Parts: sequence; structure tokens; C-alpha cells
Amino acid sequence: MNNDLYMRLALDEAWRFQLLAYPNPAVGAVLLDANGKILSIAAHEKSGEAHAEVLALYRAFTAAKGEAPNPPKTSAEIHGFLRSNHNGFFADATLYCSLEPCNAEGKTPSCAALIADLSVSRVVFAARDTTDKMKGGGEYLKSRGVEVEGGCLESEGEKLLAPFRIWQKKPFVLFKQAIRLDGSIDGGIISCHEALDETHKLRSVCDLLLIGGASVRADRPTLDARRTGGKAPDVLILSRNKDEIAAKTAMAESVFMDNNDILNGNVVRNLTGNLFDKNIPLFSVPNRKVMVANLGELERHLRGFTLVEGGAEMFNLIYDHIDWCLFYQSAALTGGEKRVKSDRPLELLRAEKFHSNTKLWFETKR
Amino acid sequence: MNNDLYMRLALDEAWRFQLLAYPNPAVGAVLLDANGKILSIAAHEKSGEAHAEVLALYRAFTAAKGEAPNPPKTSAEIHGFLRSNHNGFFADATLYCSLEPCNAEGKTPSCAALIADLSVSRVVFAARDTTDKMKGGGEYLKSRGVEVEGGCLESEGEKLLAPFRIWQKKPFVLFKQAIRLDGSIDGGIISCHEALDETHKLRSVCDLLLIGGASVRADRPTLDARRTGGKAPDVLILSRNKDEIAAKTAMAESVFMDNNDILNGNVVRNLTGNLFDKNIPLFSVPNRKVMVANLGELERHLRGFTLVEGGAEMFNLIYDHIDWCLFYQSAALTGGEKRVKSDRPLELLRAEKFHSNTKLWFETKR
Repeated sequence: MNNDLYMRLALDEAWRFQLLAYPNPAVGAVLLDANGKILSIAAHEKSGEAHAEVLALYRAFTAAKGEAPNPPKTSAEIHGFLRSNHNGFFADATLYCSLEPCNAEGKTPSCAALIADLSVSRVVFAARDTTDKMKGGGEYLKSRGVEVEGGCLESEGEKLLAPFRIWQKKPFVLFKQAIRLDGSIDGGIISCHEALDETHKLRSVCDLLLIGGASVRADRPTLDARRTGGKAPDVLILSRNKDEIAAKTAMAESVFMDNNDILNGNVVRNLTGNLFDKNIPLFSVPNRKVMVANLGELERHLRGFTLVEGGAEMFNLIYDHIDWCLFYQSAALTGGEKRVKSDRPLELLRAEKFHSNTKLWFETKR
Repeated sequence: MNNDLYMRLALDEAWRFQLLAYPNPAVGAVLLDANGKILSIAAHEKSGEAHAEVLALYRAFTAAKGEAPNPPKTSAEIHGFLRSNHNGFFADATLYCSLEPCNAEGKTPSCAALIADLSVSRVVFAARDTTDKMKGGGEYLKSRGVEVEGGCLESEGEKLLAPFRIWQKKPFVLFKQAIRLDGSIDGGIISCHEALDETHKLRSVCDLLLIGGASVRADRPTLDARRTGGKAPDVLILSRNKDEIAAKTAMAESVFMDNNDILNGNVVRNLTGNLFDKNIPLFSVPNRKVMVANLGELERHLRGFTLVEGGAEMFNLIYDHIDWCLFYQSAALTGGEKRVKSDRPLELLRAEKFHSNTKLWFETKR
């Protein structure tokens, strides 16, 4: 079998954690031994934790040698553990990575240095690391005598990496929508509980959650990450009424509300009361900011990873700001009437069964 | 890595040809060498051609040894070629199959005998072959000294095999529908051309194509397999008007029309003229039968593999006859208004990107 098969396994694994390692990129890795046997498959699962390459190396080692008595926990500890214990285990191994291994110490030690120190004989990667801080891993590995082959399934690697490429330069905006097979998006909970859990994970890693004022009034949401115990995101409510309120209160700027202020009953409460019922649960989540903005103000509020919690009107209203869409689609053919209708195009990036839902990734074409 | 990874690769490959090998089952196979390296991945692609196991063995052999000067073409020739040339190549190999290898000569020679003759050391399979004719491959292999392990990802193997299990006993009915992301199904061509091609492949292997009378009148379809050069299927038109016509013409039975009769201008033409415009292209396809039936007559017309070409009303009308559904879903959010609306449940079996569409397999829950 050729490189593509192994790289595809690495890409597939990485997609399972797409966006969840924010602000880091989604990366997958597969390790083969000298005979071409697959030893491990891994992805970078969470920022601050071990990179995909390191996890793949560690998993292959422990699968063969057994767990350490005191297993290393942090990425730095895993690096140290492998350096101390490898004893030539990785000589003649081939490592497939969807992204060129990093070449400098970030939150975790450099992968390229570790790979070379462990005497991995060959590294195949898909997309090139072009960040000023991390680039050059391939060249470094070559200088250390590792055989390096870049550009394997490069375009697939670039697709996987596209969100990271975007948020290096400007805010990345994901429009997330729960939808039924019949296209309906209203009428109660649509997603399976695993999709709801994943949405809460996305909320806990994003910088900002954007939602429409009408949805806030109709659904009275909490918009926290309680299902997975994560941090509740700051919320930006897009509201047409905001203009009117702002004019009345002589505020030219967006209305900023800190929930601690709301809970403490300060002056913002009165203003809030005009826009939204302050008993809507999202206003009672502590340690979160809530902002209200109109469409003209939207752009300057967008932050690194902005998660948009869908809606029939929202899609068209902010299409020109959306980079990607994530749809969790149930198999139901009944339950609601409201649909996202738009002549703005989407291009399918990936589709897969995710428990009882279908998980669909799209990019916009602006 | 454990068995599951390799079996999953076999299952994935088999799903690409789901129903296309009718009346044979969808089967996938993966071959590993003594060191655990993947040598080949294959599926049974078409009835009468080589089984998945045989293709996997052949591909692995030619990848290592090069193409034969006069490559074997038929499955029997491939069996013969491998028996004559293997020279111990497969000793210590492991073969993963989604279905227990067949144990008797059908349209092609027995896989179990070939596998044993080639001295494959180990066979892992998912679902057991329970057909009277083919069963017992595992026991046979054991009796020949092959290590055999059944039941690996068995439930996934059974899902893959479910249509075959059904059409062993009764007609298998597939409801096929092109749909947009917004749920709409009308307003012009929806599917990408690869999905259209695959639909024509399904038409060419099915025993009967079922379509609603309203669709025939509105869409004036041809319903042949011209995109892939296959045989046009016989057509059953489900028509409410048929009762009236039948009463008028004192025909108690379904109206059978042979297109050759229609083209020859015999008496059926007059009858046809009452129900449908005889210039609708499907009536001009030679060597096909067209039948018209009402709902009460439907069941006795259903044949081995009946392909239903969707429609908003058809789904609910015949839900109790449907086994599986296949939806080709485009990424469009506009283009039509009509939807399949139903409170009858579907359970997602599989979802995957298929060119620019999403290919969705569901089973009904009757």
C-alpha cells in the first residue's frame, strides 16, 4: 500500500478533533514499524496537551512495552519519558503526520527534536507548517539524518488545516446548525446527545459565541458548556432592536454587559431589561461577558474563534463573515417547519456518521 | 493495532459497492503479510466477478510480483493463476473478510478452498455465512489448518450484509431520494454527476424500478441506465388512476405493458394512452417491461431488489414495504419547496462524502 492510505488514517483521526484543539491546528499522526505495520494512530486533542506525533510515538511504545509504573502526564513529561526510555525502539519507524512537525518549543517541547532524538527513520507529512514560530521542522529533521517527504495528500492536509490558517490572520467564524433530514431547524432539540456534548466542547474552546436576538428571546438559552464541564463562552447577541435602545440611551457603542454586573444589580440591568428579559438563563451564567451589537458593529466584535449558533435568518445575515459551517443532521423527517433558505453556496468538506447524527463540514464561497 | 482497524478498512471498502454486486452480498477484504503490513484492500464489485478475498489476494500478489504477461480476467482464471503461481507467497498472511469466505462453487470457484490452497495462515471474518449453499467456510478452513477467528466487528458486518440477508428471504426494497440540505426534493437536478452515475448503476442491477404515476407525468423520465451503459430496468408505476382505468377496461389485474408492444403499436397503446402520455421517454426504451399497479397490488409485484425512485408522497405511501433508504444530499439551501415529510422513523446506518454530495444510508423501523 502507498503513503496515501496511512496519511488518510492520520487525517481521519485529526478530523475527529477539528477545532477542539483551538488555538492549535487539528493534526493527526500514524506510526509504522520497519516492516510497515501500523503501531499507532493519534490526533492532537486539546491545546496544551501532547501533539499528535508525540501521542502516536507514546502509544506505540506503551502498546509494545506496557504502561510505565508512573505514567507521564504532561506533554513535557511524555517527551522526557520517551527520550529516557526509547532505547532504539523507533529506529526504522515511519511517522505520517498531517502537518509538518513543529520545530520550536511552544506550549510543549519541539516535536521535530523529539522525532530526531528517537531516531525515527522517516517522516511523511501532508501540509507544510508556515508559521514563523514553528516552521522548518522538515529541514531540521533532514539535517538530523531523517528521511523526509512532504506534500503527501497535501490538499487534504490543507483542508484540515484551513481553520488554523485563517485564525492566524483574522477571526475564524464557524456557523453551527442542528438540522433534520427534512431541512427543518425548529421545534425542539434535534441533535443526539453526543452532538450536544460536542457543541458544548466547541463552546468551551471558542473565544466568542454569536447568537441572534430573536433566538435569545424565543429559546431563552443558557449557552454554557455544562454538559462537558467547560468554561462558558462570552456571548455576542446580534440585535436589530439594539439600535433603537442605543439611541434612546444615547449610547453610540455596543452595549457591553458583564453578568457579574447583572447579578449585582447595577445600572446595566435596566438597560438589559429593555432589550431582553434578564431572567433568560444566559444572563445568569457567572464570569461571562454578554455584548449586544448590530450588524454594522459585528466585524469588530469577532474574535479568534467565533462560534455562531445558527438560525434561519442568521445564515444569510452574516454569510460574508462565515468561513465554515458545521451541521449536525438528524434522520428525522418531521418536527419543525423553519428552514435555512439561501442562495449563497456551500461546498462540502467532509461528512461522517457521528452516533445517530450526520456531521457535515462545509466551507463558504465568498 | 488490533483486528478492528483492518476489519473497518474492509467494511469501508465494501460499503463503496453496497448493492452494486446484487444478487451477491457486499463484501470487503484486507490482506496483511506476516509482519502485519497491509498488502491490499478489495471489495466484491460486481456479481460474476472475483470475490473480495480473491481480489485482495490477487492485488497483493501482483503488487509484489508485477502484472502477469497475460493477466487473468475472469474470477476462475484468477483462482487458477494464483494456484499456479503463488509459490508460498501467502504463507503467514492474514486475511480479513467482512463475510465468512464462501465454501462452495457458485458463479465463481470457492474462496475457502483457494485460501487454504494458498496456505494463508489466518482468516478473520465479521459476519457468518448462513446460506445453505455457501456456509461452512470457517469450519472448512480450520479443517485445512488455517487459523480462523469469526465475529470481529460482527454487528457492523451484519449491517453491511443486511440487504443480502433480506433478499435471501423476500424482496429488498430501497427507497432512493435526491435531496438538498434544506430538505427540498423538487426543482430540477439535485445530485452531482457521480451520484447520477451511481443511480444508473443501481438501476442496471436492480430487478424492478418503482415510481409514482405523478412523478412519471410531471418529470417525463427515461429511467434507463444510459449514463453507465447498463440494462434499463423493468418499471412498475404506482398509480391511483389505474383502478379507474382497469375498471373501464374490465381488467382486474395489473396492466402489463411491454415496450416492444408499445413501439409496435398494439392494443396496449390505447390503454397506455389513457393513463400516461405514451411519448413519455420511459415507454420508448426497448426491451423493458412497464407495469402499472395500485397500492393494493404492490406487494406481489415487488421483486428481489426493487429500487424506488423517491418522491414526497411515495415515502409515506409505501413506508411499510421499504427496507433501506439511500439519500444523495447536495449542499444547496435553495432550489425547491417540496419535501419528504413523515413521522415514520429512519435510523442512520452510514454517512460519507461522495464527491460533492453526502451519501446517506438509512434503515426503516417497521
